[in-house]
Amino acid sequence: MRNRIEIYDTTLRDGTQGEAINFSVADKLQIATMLDELGVDFIEGGWPGSNPRDVAFFEEARSLKLSRARVAAFGATRRRGLSCAQDPSIQALISAGTPVVTIFGKTWELHVQDALRISPKDNLDLIEDSVRYLSERADLVIYDAEHFFDGYRANQEYAIDTLRAAVAGGAQRIVLCDTNGGSLPDEVTDATRVVAEQIEVPLGIHCHNDGELAVANTLAAVTAGVTHVQGTINGYGERCGNANLCSVIPNLELKLGKEVIGRERLGRLRETASLVSEIANLSLQSSAAFVGDSAFAHKGGVHVAAVERNPRTYEHIPPESVGNRRRVLVSDLSGRGNLVAKARELNIDLNSEQAVLQELKRLEHAGFEFEAAEASFELLVNRVHNSSEPYFELISFRVIDQHQGSEMPMSEATVKIRVGDHEEHSAASGNGPVNALDRALHRGLAKFYPSLEKVHLVDYKVRVLQSPLSGSASLVRVLITSSDGTTKWATVGVSANIVEASWRALVDSVEYKLMKDGVSPIGASVEEADKKPALV
Amino acid sequence: MRNRIEIYDTTLRDGTQGEAINFSVADKLQIATMLDELGVDFIEGGWPGSNPRDVAFFEEARSLKLSRARVAAFGATRRRGLSCAQDPSIQALISAGTPVVTIFGKTWELHVQDALRISPKDNLDLIEDSVRYLSERADLVIYDAEHFFDGYRANQEYAIDTLRAAVAGGAQRIVLCDTNGGSLPDEVTDATRVVAEQIEVPLGIHCHNDGELAVANTLAAVTAGVTHVQGTINGYGERCGNANLCSVIPNLELKLGKEVIGRERLGRLRETASLVSEIANLSLQSSAAFVGDSAFAHKGGVHVAAVERNPRTYEHIPPESVGNRRRVLVSDLSGRGNLVAKARELNIDLNSEQAVLQELKRLEHAGFEFEAAEASFELLVNRVHNSSEPYFELISFRVIDQHQGSEMPMSEATVKIRVGDHEEHSAASGNGPVNALDRALHRGLAKFYPSLEKVHLVDYKVRVLQSPLSGSASLVRVLITSSDGTTKWATVGVSANIVEASWRALVDSVEYKLMKDGVSPIGASVEEADKKPALV
Repeated sequence: MRNRIEIYDTTLRDGTQGEAINFSVADKLQIATMLDELGVDFIEGGWPGSNPRDVAFFEEARSLKLSRARVAAFGATRRRGLSCAQDPSIQALISAGTPVVTIFGKTWELHVQDALRISPKDNLDLIEDSVRYLSERADLVIYDAEHFFDGYRANQEYAIDTLRAAVAGGAQRIVLCDTNGGSLPDEVTDATRVVAEQIEVPLGIHCHNDGELAVANTLAAVTAGVTHVQGTINGYGERCGNANLCSVIPNLELKLGKEVIGRERLGRLRETASLVSEIANLSLQSSAAFVGDSAFAHKGGVHVAAVERNPRTYEHIPPESVGNRRRVLVSDLSGRGNLVAKARELNIDLNSEQAVLQELKRLEHAGFEFEAAEASFELLVNRVHNSSEPYFELISFRVIDQHQGSEMPMSEATVKIRVGDHEEHSAASGNGPVNALDRALHRGLAKFYPSLEKVHLVDYKVRVLQSPLSGSASLVRVLITSSDGTTKWATVGVSANIVEASWRALVDSVEYKLMKDGVSPIGASVEEADKKPALV
Repeated sequence: MRNRIEIYDTTLRDGTQGEAINFSVADKLQIATMLDELGVDFIEGGWPGSNPRDVAFFEEARSLKLSRARVAAFGATRRRGLSCAQDPSIQALISAGTPVVTIFGKTWELHVQDALRISPKDNLDLIEDSVRYLSERADLVIYDAEHFFDGYRANQEYAIDTLRAAVAGGAQRIVLCDTNGGSLPDEVTDATRVVAEQIEVPLGIHCHNDGELAVANTLAAVTAGVTHVQGTINGYGERCGNANLCSVIPNLELKLGKEVIGRERLGRLRETASLVSEIANLSLQSSAAFVGDSAFAHKGGVHVAAVERNPRTYEHIPPESVGNRRRVLVSDLSGRGNLVAKARELNIDLNSEQAVLQELKRLEHAGFEFEAAEASFELLVNRVHNSSEPYFELISFRVIDQHQGSEMPMSEATVKIRVGDHEEHSAASGNGPVNALDRALHRGLAKFYPSLEKVHLVDYKVRVLQSPLSGSASLVRVLITSSDGTTKWATVGVSANIVEASWRALVDSVEYKLMKDGVSPIGASVEEADKKPALV
């Protein structure tokens, strides 16, 4: 089956070499389950010889019910001077008890001499007998040829000899690694072709992104005959990361016509990317190919109009094929067409298009920007359409920031609001004015609207604008991202005063949550408010 | 000169199509200056026919003193039914008064029929006479063949006919655009080769990153004969962005051996990437190839030891060649070279290099970043070197932000400082807490240091950082740009509290001005202070 490409995911091992990426054992188990559902063939779980967390993962992983993927443990060839039976790292690989074992060896003489400090011949022996020892004890052994392309450039013959040693030992996959990530696609193609002529065992590719070419290098290798592809979700990995499977898989499946995870599972791609980024506590890059929020976002009015008529005009693939969706950005570059398209996207009825457009223009002229604040946009439409009761009214707020001598500075906020007939006066302190204000507002509202208790700030951005109205005071635009643990939404506030701008974004955040939950405003009459206490 | 590759930067035009990217006219002028210093050949400043901000930019850009780059205005072919003289968009291009004009036309019959709704023949006429009209009025006309590769796949002959029409009109560059970003490198190579055989005019390439292949596609085109490359700093652009010049340039220069901006200017790459991201108020992706913080970061152990012995073992290029640096994660032991280079650049004598390095590391660990705040860096060096009298000491400050009913919100600050033996208590109101604090501080200091009267804030940026120390409170980094009417300087402050972070940046701003003016601190004795009143 020449057309079938195996996916070997190393998010849990090479991915964790990325700066600021740390997974707990529970995180790893959760990700492994998701990878299996996505349809990858192999899940590299860790390096049992290198840390206790990975040992624990492999212990727990035995009880995972995976439908398709096989778990692999990763390690190095035995140390010189030790037999495999004596080498603790090789023994840790065996103890991991995985059906698949992957070991890497040295291809590049520079490394053999500078890092291992053994002779080229000894390196070949070391590869062959490490692979043989493991082949006799695991279902499948995969051999990762570290620095293959650098080694090949330096000494083509020796580089291929190291692969032959692994084949002689019984390796069932030979993986060509661009460890330093600096190779060019043409180099990958040429070297892979030469190897494919000389090695009978199925070949694999493992690329790093130091030249921003990892995806291209991976595709180049596949075109040159490789059938096993290694990479990570979202391209996580050391330095600039590994080949990003979220781009490699759809390119293989949709562009090169390979059988990878299948069209149906491909629809889970964006969700997988998004959940893995959540677990890694990193935001998924908005501009990420295929899976990013902006990947199918159209800003220019001309583009929007064309896409509405025929998506192929500005979309290279249908967004749904990777579980993504088209978005229309509302910005000053666009007009009525974008607004209508945006409303359709968000399932909002625009019964007074003209009024919304007018309000949008007024606010954008005042410095608002709804592109990155869809929740505020939905509220805007809702306010224009429905002249319903507000959830609450502000009577006043006050924030005090104080720095006294060498003490830590602190902020304190008081908020007075009216909810129905109630007047609520609340106070809170915080590590900054916005934090204090946010906490005081939530404290005041929570007893009327308990679902707000789960809401918290996850991001806060500030931008100083040149005032579009006069040369005097600068305007400040605040973008806030909130979360209730399940979904996230972004709101915007603009004012010459940063605290006021933050307040407006906070109010939008609260109102959006209540609107989405379908909560009714507490009415003006106390009796009525008492009769229908905070639903949800 | 076959080996010379021209760089055409479109950060200011196509880059602003990226989600959440907005540049003011002042931002654009600053970026244009930086691009010129980096050594690009062309700077596409905007689309004068599409919005008033771009018109303003071109007006101001005429007085920019650029050493190398030529400014280009971007627009479309004339509308059907209008002559070029009647078409307001073509006339806006002329009015922009740039030496270079770039216009795009349709290559793909799907677009000709669905978007323009004219016959294929009429499209050819429209391209030819638009190009001719502009060629007679500008020094150089560049023709962007929109959707070239899609058009070529659909109808090779017609696609090339559109290029011929542009050549007949007098275009001096023919740029093949992968507008939807979905092409593969092999497709780009094949199509470019065919075009290169048939078109005599120098060819260019313009790629989008929807398949995470924009850099590879650009290199493929260059290998196939293209000599003009378009892209954006940090790959900003619509959807998944444009070809990232921060990866394209070093790949061309260091890997393919082309003459691009030259080895020396290449050393400014990281700084340019970083400053453009600051202006865009987006953080530079840590894993970005070549220029990211993690691009040469090694996570402990074997890699670090090997790299210390021989950098080639785990680094595809020397980090300094792109102005980046090696980082050893966990215990950062490097950076000395950068510090020395930076001090040299700023003409600072480093007589206690080790002490400065230590302080720098402590502050960077706490979230400070001096790349965009050179004034704070100079102060840091100065503080380590000279244990001189401070200009003043803070006793306490307090800021109150109040919003009462429908009144405009206001902020009031009080600042108590000690200057020599004086204790000064001042108050001021402002349209925000930082403005109030800034005014109160200046009011308190001005009678001791009158030169501060001319100093005012010109920009203020805030970024929320993940705390490097714990998971609890987020840190806030504030960057302030100040001016005294003659020069501008940037300072930084970090704290969990935004007001405190702003205060620190304000204090640095004041101290920097006084240091630069050579003002002596008011001494501890009142008599002495009275004897030498505020020099300047």
